[in-house]
Amino acid sequence: MGLLKMGMIGGGAGSFIGDVHRKAASIDGMITLVCGAFSSTEEKSLASAEALGIPKNRAYGSFEEMIKKEALLPEEERMDFVAIVTPNHMHFPPAKMALEHGFHVICDKPMTLTLDEAQELENIVESSQKVFALTHNYTGYPMVKQAKAMISKGDLGIIRKVNVQYLQGWLSTAVEKTGQKQASWRVDPKKSGIGGALGDIGTHAENLVEYITGTQIEELAADLSAFGEGRTLDDDGNILLRFKNGAKGTMTFSQIATGEENNLGVKIYGTKGSLEWYQENPNELIARWLEQPKQIFTPGGNGGYPEASDYVRIPAGHPEGYLEGFATIYRSFAKELINIKNGQSMAKKFDFPTVKDGTRGMKFIYAAVKSSSDNAKWVKI
Amino acid sequence: MGLLKMGMIGGGAGSFIGDVHRKAASIDGMITLVCGAFSSTEEKSLASAEALGIPKNRAYGSFEEMIKKEALLPEEERMDFVAIVTPNHMHFPPAKMALEHGFHVICDKPMTLTLDEAQELENIVESSQKVFALTHNYTGYPMVKQAKAMISKGDLGIIRKVNVQYLQGWLSTAVEKTGQKQASWRVDPKKSGIGGALGDIGTHAENLVEYITGTQIEELAADLSAFGEGRTLDDDGNILLRFKNGAKGTMTFSQIATGEENNLGVKIYGTKGSLEWYQENPNELIARWLEQPKQIFTPGGNGGYPEASDYVRIPAGHPEGYLEGFATIYRSFAKELINIKNGQSMAKKFDFPTVKDGTRGMKFIYAAVKSSSDNAKWVKI
Amino acid sequence: MGLLKMGMIGGGAGSFIGDVHRKAASIDGMITLVCGAFSSTEEKSLASAEALGIPKNRAYGSFEEMIKKEALLPEEERMDFVAIVTPNHMHFPPAKMALEHGFHVICDKPMTLTLDEAQELENIVESSQKVFALTHNYTGYPMVKQAKAMISKGDLGIIRKVNVQYLQGWLSTAVEKTGQKQASWRVDPKKSGIGGALGDIGTHAENLVEYITGTQIEELAADLSAFGEGRTLDDDGNILLRFKNGAKGTMTFSQIATGEENNLGVKIYGTKGSLEWYQENPNELIARWLEQPKQIFTPGGNGGYPEASDYVRIPAGHPEGYLEGFATIYRSFAKELINIKNGQSMAKKFDFPTVKDGTRGMKFIYAAVKSSSDNAKWVKI
Amino acid sequence: MGLLKMGMIGGGAGSFIGDVHRKAASIDGMITLVCGAFSSTEEKSLASAEALGIPKNRAYGSFEEMIKKEALLPEEERMDFVAIVTPNHMHFPPAKMALEHGFHVICDKPMTLTLDEAQELENIVESSQKVFALTHNYTGYPMVKQAKAMISKGDLGIIRKVNVQYLQGWLSTAVEKTGQKQASWRVDPKKSGIGGALGDIGTHAENLVEYITGTQIEELAADLSAFGEGRTLDDDGNILLRFKNGAKGTMTFSQIATGEENNLGVKIYGTKGSLEWYQENPNELIARWLEQPKQIFTPGGNGGYPEASDYVRIPAGHPEGYLEGFATIYRSFAKELINIKNGQSMAKKFDFPTVKDGTRGMKFIYAAVKSSSDNAKWVKI
Repeated sequence: MGLLKMGMIGGGAGSFIGDVHRKAASIDGMITLVCGAFSSTEEKSLASAEALGIPKNRAYGSFEEMIKKEALLPEEERMDFVAIVTPNHMHFPPAKMALEHGFHVICDKPMTLTLDEAQELENIVESSQKVFALTHNYTGYPMVKQAKAMISKGDLGIIRKVNVQYLQGWLSTAVEKTGQKQASWRVDPKKSGIGGALGDIGTHAENLVEYITGTQIEELAADLSAFGEGRTLDDDGNILLRFKNGAKGTMTFSQIATGEENNLGVKIYGTKGSLEWYQENPNELIARWLEQPKQIFTPGGNGGYPEASDYVRIPAGHPEGYLEGFATIYRSFAKELINIKNGQSMAKKFDFPTVKDGTRGMKFIYAAVKSSSDNAKWVKI
Repeated sequence: MGLLKMGMIGGGAGSFIGDVHRKAASIDGMITLVCGAFSSTEEKSLASAEALGIPKNRAYGSFEEMIKKEALLPEEERMDFVAIVTPNHMHFPPAKMALEHGFHVICDKPMTLTLDEAQELENIVESSQKVFALTHNYTGYPMVKQAKAMISKGDLGIIRKVNVQYLQGWLSTAVEKTGQKQASWRVDPKKSGIGGALGDIGTHAENLVEYITGTQIEELAADLSAFGEGRTLDDDGNILLRFKNGAKGTMTFSQIATGEENNLGVKIYGTKGSLEWYQENPNELIARWLEQPKQIFTPGGNGGYPEASDYVRIPAGHPEGYLEGFATIYRSFAKELINIKNGQSMAKKFDFPTVKDGTRGMKFIYAAVKSSSDNAKWVKI
Repeated sequence: MGLLKMGMIGGGAGSFIGDVHRKAASIDGMITLVCGAFSSTEEKSLASAEALGIPKNRAYGSFEEMIKKEALLPEEERMDFVAIVTPNHMHFPPAKMALEHGFHVICDKPMTLTLDEAQELENIVESSQKVFALTHNYTGYPMVKQAKAMISKGDLGIIRKVNVQYLQGWLSTAVEKTGQKQASWRVDPKKSGIGGALGDIGTHAENLVEYITGTQIEELAADLSAFGEGRTLDDDGNILLRFKNGAKGTMTFSQIATGEENNLGVKIYGTKGSLEWYQENPNELIARWLEQPKQIFTPGGNGGYPEASDYVRIPAGHPEGYLEGFATIYRSFAKELINIKNGQSMAKKFDFPTVKDGTRGMKFIYAAVKSSSDNAKWVKI
Repeated sequence: MGLLKMGMIGGGAGSFIGDVHRKAASIDGMITLVCGAFSSTEEKSLASAEALGIPKNRAYGSFEEMIKKEALLPEEERMDFVAIVTPNHMHFPPAKMALEHGFHVICDKPMTLTLDEAQELENIVESSQKVFALTHNYTGYPMVKQAKAMISKGDLGIIRKVNVQYLQGWLSTAVEKTGQKQASWRVDPKKSGIGGALGDIGTHAENLVEYITGTQIEELAADLSAFGEGRTLDDDGNILLRFKNGAKGTMTFSQIATGEENNLGVKIYGTKGSLEWYQENPNELIARWLEQPKQIFTPGGNGGYPEASDYVRIPAGHPEGYLEGFATIYRSFAKELINIKNGQSMAKKFDFPTVKDGTRGMKFIYAAVKSSSDNAKWVKI
């Protein structure tokens, strides 16, 4: 398992997004994490490496060290690419260096701290002939790909109206003053750049609508706000949009939308039909039509285009997330085995179904068949 | 990555559930697939192994061969456990043999072909002192664990009524006559046992309600049907339930419920409150109360018990499935790199965001900030 | 307004269902309430009549008096029909008497206290040549009629499975011991007959599935319970169903399903498609298909059959209930006028929009048009 | 029934909104339609009057005639108020005249054709000492009143963000060129004023957010569009909002949002909580909180404030619309009786439940009780 070797920059203990990248990289069995500069100090980086099962000699104290040393390793051993999961201000330096040392790069968004950096990076990528991917993950959902396919095939006619929202509430209170790590860098212009919520989630909304519609925002009129006391970066914004193809629309995003979790959603209206999708319920793509009833498309379900179903890992009705529920059983089982490996006595400490559940299931089957064969007579299990 | 070594029995090319097990096993980075008897012939097994990046010498032609040969390998090399993902009639033989050779086992459900086998297996597990896990995966969802926790803490009072459903439509037509592999063994009593839909999905429903409620079905009255022409096993069933604690209820399941994808759902009513959950929308647990408004619990969201939030891999609002969307970006990126490794020229053949998307995002941020600082004046991107 | 003259039996002060009947009768402007025997005593009946604007001489102390006296009035004055809205045990006597005196009857359900009464009433109706209607109101929803039409036209193929539920929680606690009027007669076999929740809501479920499917329940196996301490009538039930056409299914109903309000819902599966409908969200009829995406039908919306759209009072998207919201404005306005009529000074005591809201709306229009004509410049309202 | 006497201006045959006003006025039994100037010609007005059961001498050829003649009738006979349901340009003249002749007025929105008219009308209302109500009907929903009450009590803290939408698709194509009456005046500035969709539905959105939040829009930046070929009035608009209390937000409305029916919705975010409500599902008010799970409020349900529950006509779970379903039974019954009155033979031509349904229900009860008393044995109905 794992045909490609990944080195990670950032993502040490306590990092949310580093963990997400690692899990996402491992699902399809094509990528193995082989090294990392997980934290800004060698000590912390080592601790993270150990927890992740990475050998000591592949845990580096800085991204510079990692890139240099890995470049000297034989090809079959050295990392193939780096995954950059640091705060925004630390995207450009390692990306540049990695590309210049011959490594492919996959990087969190927004891509850089400044627009100048972004444009420089674009040039570097082009001259390096290396692959650069940005994790605008919301374009990875099958139903987003279905939406894009439906529009590019003309199913909706000409797009005339777009409403996109990305609503979170986690900055409704002054969490950045409570020591919460992510909050503190998100509200700091030195680490986040000139956009706060705008850079963090507004760019997702921008990317999503341009990805799905196949057209681009031509001009915008934005009203950004910093509602949180003492904040200099926006934590909320409302934007009027005009698209190159003549469509118009709105974008609204917020991190002070109290109680909202991660409510990214989009509505797109064409002359023949329209689409609606929400990330919190990602398995439903709602389509409305001029003369037909509203339809609901699902991953792998009826009416799906290959452009979408190619990205479905499981059958229709098994929601995105089915794999994770399944993985939970494996994880609890694995934890039990690791405890045993570590010399602990076998005591079912973790929550997974056992042989007793299996027997119980068989008894249920037998009782049900017996009852049914006797015209639904009551049978004790 | 991968502290535990997994051997797989079944799950060769074209197997749905084998792939699910592999992906589920890999998400948390604790398990590595090291060997397999993927198919009933050595040739097919080898082909599967190659596709999965397993060395030839760890691809076996039969589970017997695998268990015997792996048992002879040094501990640091040999598999720690086997994952059994074959049709039902091939669960018991490899489970028994693996346990007797000192391997832990994780096995698909229903556990065995017959109740006799189940009871024998229970004895073998006990005497082997090995861990046996059954993949009743629906108990792996955080909101199912939240439901269980709420009931065990008494939040709902005494449970009085339970309605559970598991509705699929994939056997609405005679797909077993079209050569569809899974359909053909599911309707075959020699491979499935005495229960059809009952064994395949009824057992999930049974396991789910007993898991959540903490009580057990005491007796049942079942009305099973085989609507599909020529079928001998049930493809639909309706059951009256009576529970040990005095609760009563219904179970309905079907594989001829036309248009249903995987509609597993449960409603549980207590004296103080009630719960409702559907697998197709697994991030919502609906709670109703005697005197308070209806509430919606979400993974990692407000009001979640540790028993549930311990099983959440990502923050609230990032649905189950977020990891898979994310993984799609990684997979497309990986495919591009593999093509390059294989000597193909760099041509962006797969769908992932690139440096251009990154620059576009930066331009969007700059335009929005400029517009906002000029009182929402229109700014071109 | 009001071409038909209605007399009401029951429905005095504090009666929920009497008020529902009166409002329902008045919506379409075809029926006027002209007389009533609203309560068991003349005094109470008079008080109700006064509140309803019925002249004293048309308020009767008993249904017998009303039927006799009304029958003597000239045709252009006397009631055309009676509406019977008493508890179950008082359905049969007035229905019989009214029919025998030449009046049409509309009656609440269940129709009678006993099956014998029902069969006798059937004979009386036949010989009387009068119209008898039973208010199985749930068959009055446009989406229920759409469902019936789709099935009768064969859109779903042959019906094979039916799941119906009617879940309420209002008897979860012992409300009948708190003096709540409706609860006390509902749990009293002398007033309700042999069925408790069964008669009250189970019959609605029975009527609904037979109405929609066009076939009938042939046999059933029922497990009724009285969970509430001291209750002799069922407050919960689970039933296996077999239909005349070969379909099978379940019915579950409850008045101890804590937190449920009025959750009547039905799922019907055919060989070609299936339908799902819930009374608490009555404007959506969900259709699933063998090969097409799921569809949502709405009253007056795309794809509706005339059999349904003939029963829609308002355009698509104006939900059932739009009229009531509208009526609320009228009611508050009416209350204000009545106060003024009664000599009170004009003081806006009730909640309705006024001329100031109208001016505000005009200012909004003017500001928006001005802003837009100036390229979305900010304009103060 | 009907303590107040209503005269109607407009609302003749083929008018959607006239019919809505009549039905809304009649539900609560407080208002009777006694006269009308239903159309612009006496002939058409007479025809409408006849269909509505209004005597000939109370059907007028013009509103001027009606107001003058009604003013001369004795008080117990003459109308108490006029309901104005004409196109926008015909709101002001009859409203002015009615008020000046001593009649109260209830009027459709937007209130007038121009802002000047609105301000003049405001003065007239004040000097007339008559009641003027505007049918901003969406403020009549119980859950809208619940939202208003929650905010005014401070449950949500300080309001910071408001997103409101009103999306329809009925002008997606050039229906105004097909002879559709409403479409043709809606797109005509002479009849609609300077706002198209803005005046028709934008004003509803404006009224709704100001009603609920208790604050007002202070300034706005609007981008209006006329997508339909040849249209001079807007059929779509996007607006940035700033409120007097410091909140910011967006409004988006459209009549070219293909497939949308009547999707009015609002999201309001405060420092302590937030609310979300949609007119197409009016029985649910979603509340999100800083630290508690999401809640769903329902009309008459748990947690409702008296400010809302005072406006509920039926118990919790009986959705808005329950009355209309109920009324459908009454209407079919009434049609049958009218046919009979008109001398037709009794033939059940309309769809309502009969005595046979009643007997069937009794048989169902008897069968279920018998089965249950015999331990759920099968019993034939």
